[in-house]
Amino acid sequence: MAPNITPRAQDFPRWYQDVVNRAELAENGPVRGTMVIRPWGYAIWELLQAALDARIKAAGAENAYFPLLIPESYLQREAEHVEGFSPELAVVTHAGGKELEEPVVVRPTSETIINSYFAKWVQSYRDLPLLVNQWANVVRWELRPRLFLRTTEFLWQEGHTAHADEADARRYALRILTDVYRSTMVEVMSIPVLTGHKTAQERFAGAIRSWACEAMMGDGKALQMGTSHELGQNFAKAFGIQFAGEGGTEEYVWQTSWGVSTRLIGALIMTHGDDAGLRLPPALAPVEVVVLVVRESEEVRSAAAAVVAELVAAGRRVRLDDRVDTSFGRRAVGWEIKGVPVRIEIGPRELAEGQVTVVRRDVGTKRPVPLAGAAAAALDDLDATQINLRDSAEAAARARTVSVDTLEDAAEAAANGFALVPWSLLGPTGEQLLAGGGVTVRCLQRPDGTLAESDDEADLVAVVAKAY
Amino acid sequence: MAPNITPRAQDFPRWYQDVVNRAELAENGPVRGTMVIRPWGYAIWELLQAALDARIKAAGAENAYFPLLIPESYLQREAEHVEGFSPELAVVTHAGGKELEEPVVVRPTSETIINSYFAKWVQSYRDLPLLVNQWANVVRWELRPRLFLRTTEFLWQEGHTAHADEADARRYALRILTDVYRSTMVEVMSIPVLTGHKTAQERFAGAIRSWACEAMMGDGKALQMGTSHELGQNFAKAFGIQFAGEGGTEEYVWQTSWGVSTRLIGALIMTHGDDAGLRLPPALAPVEVVVLVVRESEEVRSAAAAVVAELVAAGRRVRLDDRVDTSFGRRAVGWEIKGVPVRIEIGPRELAEGQVTVVRRDVGTKRPVPLAGAAAAALDDLDATQINLRDSAEAAARARTVSVDTLEDAAEAAANGFALVPWSLLGPTGEQLLAGGGVTVRCLQRPDGTLAESDDEADLVAVVAKAY
Repeated sequence: MAPNITPRAQDFPRWYQDVVNRAELAENGPVRGTMVIRPWGYAIWELLQAALDARIKAAGAENAYFPLLIPESYLQREAEHVEGFSPELAVVTHAGGKELEEPVVVRPTSETIINSYFAKWVQSYRDLPLLVNQWANVVRWELRPRLFLRTTEFLWQEGHTAHADEADARRYALRILTDVYRSTMVEVMSIPVLTGHKTAQERFAGAIRSWACEAMMGDGKALQMGTSHELGQNFAKAFGIQFAGEGGTEEYVWQTSWGVSTRLIGALIMTHGDDAGLRLPPALAPVEVVVLVVRESEEVRSAAAAVVAELVAAGRRVRLDDRVDTSFGRRAVGWEIKGVPVRIEIGPRELAEGQVTVVRRDVGTKRPVPLAGAAAAALDDLDATQINLRDSAEAAARARTVSVDTLEDAAEAAANGFALVPWSLLGPTGEQLLAGGGVTVRCLQRPDGTLAESDDEADLVAVVAKAY
Repeated sequence: MAPNITPRAQDFPRWYQDVVNRAELAENGPVRGTMVIRPWGYAIWELLQAALDARIKAAGAENAYFPLLIPESYLQREAEHVEGFSPELAVVTHAGGKELEEPVVVRPTSETIINSYFAKWVQSYRDLPLLVNQWANVVRWELRPRLFLRTTEFLWQEGHTAHADEADARRYALRILTDVYRSTMVEVMSIPVLTGHKTAQERFAGAIRSWACEAMMGDGKALQMGTSHELGQNFAKAFGIQFAGEGGTEEYVWQTSWGVSTRLIGALIMTHGDDAGLRLPPALAPVEVVVLVVRESEEVRSAAAAVVAELVAAGRRVRLDDRVDTSFGRRAVGWEIKGVPVRIEIGPRELAEGQVTVVRRDVGTKRPVPLAGAAAAALDDLDATQINLRDSAEAAARARTVSVDTLEDAAEAAANGFALVPWSLLGPTGEQLLAGGGVTVRCLQRPDGTLAESDDEADLVAVVAKAY
């Protein structure tokens, strides 16, 4: 157990705070709810961004950048949207030493400004689909902020697309949900997720259908990891996005929007962290292997350099830690807190026998390995870690998921994890009753866990839980 | 000459506007001075970012992220800094539906907020140097905005570092200037730059020494491409950034800050653009080679696919343009406007003779090439383009640079390009006189163009010009 980290079982929220702090991931900013992302946290974000960005580009979307500052009047054009976001807006009233004629808002999301440009750019069916993504910061005033999970400013990507018909928009929203989001979460973050339909109650302000990826955190609560929305023609009508179809008639486009944010780093911590700190899947570890010099000697130095060189040549992110003026134990604990997946310890005594020690962070195993096999052992451990973290999370989630037949059982089960309850039994009325106890429907799925075409399909199952 | 592009010689500012617009790089945002960066412009920015980011990391700095919103009081702690930025601030007075107790500003730059954290993070000499970089958007209210060159919101990187002594800070500021900025500008952007010392008049608000990269644009005016500042102990004292030295005494750190922005895309346009539109150095071209199907046939299709595959295998960014329902001429002109360095045209008639046409955008040469040699020819042309653009820009700048001995001659020469005038002749008084005619000292250099240690070295030469 690491010093100054509250045990997870004792107080999960404090444990989370401690890990964020001790792993030097982030700290509070001076303005309420804002966050400083420190280099270790930001390096994780860069790796995650790269994984998402490659998949977004593979799905055909192009990156662009739209202004931070949006005229207040733009938000008011779509009725549900402005209602949803008004309480959270930050408003610039003065600029350049003067009061502005029209106040401008700091973007809480960019549907309104992006769609005002789509209206100019889309003329004919040949311009469709129009697939745009943006990496940006957004601001939503938060009353109960928590680092990464709910912050006044956060970093995210937001995709915005326009299509010639509803079916194409639907297909694209689902492609993003599965091929971009679920794929990144499962393959890269090692986090198993449920995907499904949001209920009307939980829908995005302005959407006609919302889809989500939901995951179970270490305390049994749900975290919404990402959402993909079908906007129908709501924004198209509000902003006049029309195109000449192949037959020449003017039609409104069908749209989607979708986003994931720095909240995902919160998910990573709460899914994989343990009482010793963070545990990182190798795909997102800024340092995959740390080579730790236990005590200095010429042999140790050259052995460490050789192992580092071999791992670098294998394309891995490696760090040499030869700060021998800091105690070995303190450094080892430091790398554990930061979640580095594999540690290779090299000391004079062991090395005299041709051995080094390879330590796996996820399961804590330590094993002596001949020097010549150290890099290969580390590579094996990295592969095993990426898989084991996912399997462990999957097993933990399964152990805390139960199928129930009554509202009472659903409420009880949700105190400890996920409850699966027939949507026909629950319905909007049951949903409202559960909400009284802080339990929400995370998503609707078919009984086999696959995505339903619509929310009035028979036999749908509601996944209910307490949520972040 | 491309349709709807004003000739450069006729009206340079309108030509610039036309290229930005017709190459689909950017357009105006709804809030005064803001900018929408369209996919083609943003893809160039991503390539430029990657080149800069790799060099920044090689210089040892780590990326992090600090909040957009800064308490007004933070800016007021450093006297010159607040004076420099006050007229440009955008102020949030209302948020979450209420008036804020203390207004917050949208960051115009992050010295104040970052240094308030440095004060917490720096304890001992072991924590130094502390080298942090941030990729972010900043807002400075602009009265005379111009796309990319001067916008109310822009994207940039800002580096902030703390060092144990002045010499180390100086070395690092200069390392960034040369190894990161000049290297990227010359090697990647193909833009020759002058580097030198800023005069007291032109210094960054709060710096003790500012260094800059300056380049000559196509109209003979100067553009400041990037700056690296020594902040001395100004912010260290304002924010209390102290460390225990090896001897145990408490000392203030010495600091630097440095940045380049989306303004660099303006530089790219104004250095390399011609009457047909943009010309991109291959290193920054989102599409390095476009393979253009002139008219469809089975042979053309399979030849085009083979050439594309060969270039992709060579690691190049390639686009197949087989939109044969749009006229060939129109498509060819479109790619020229966008600045794609090499075009391979494949049509049935030529192909029947085993030939294709390879067109170089920078010099406009068209040559028939046997199909089997098309990819190799394109690769040669890419290498040649990267070098030729730089050589041409260098020759153009040299042709418009003159050494002069009087203020009158300096003012006259600066109407057309750069004038080199002895700083001992000019001095702060001469500088002020020139400023009356809109001519400024861009930087101070040694007579051989190298960097001077200080601005009171004898024999310094002032580079004077009109500037953007």
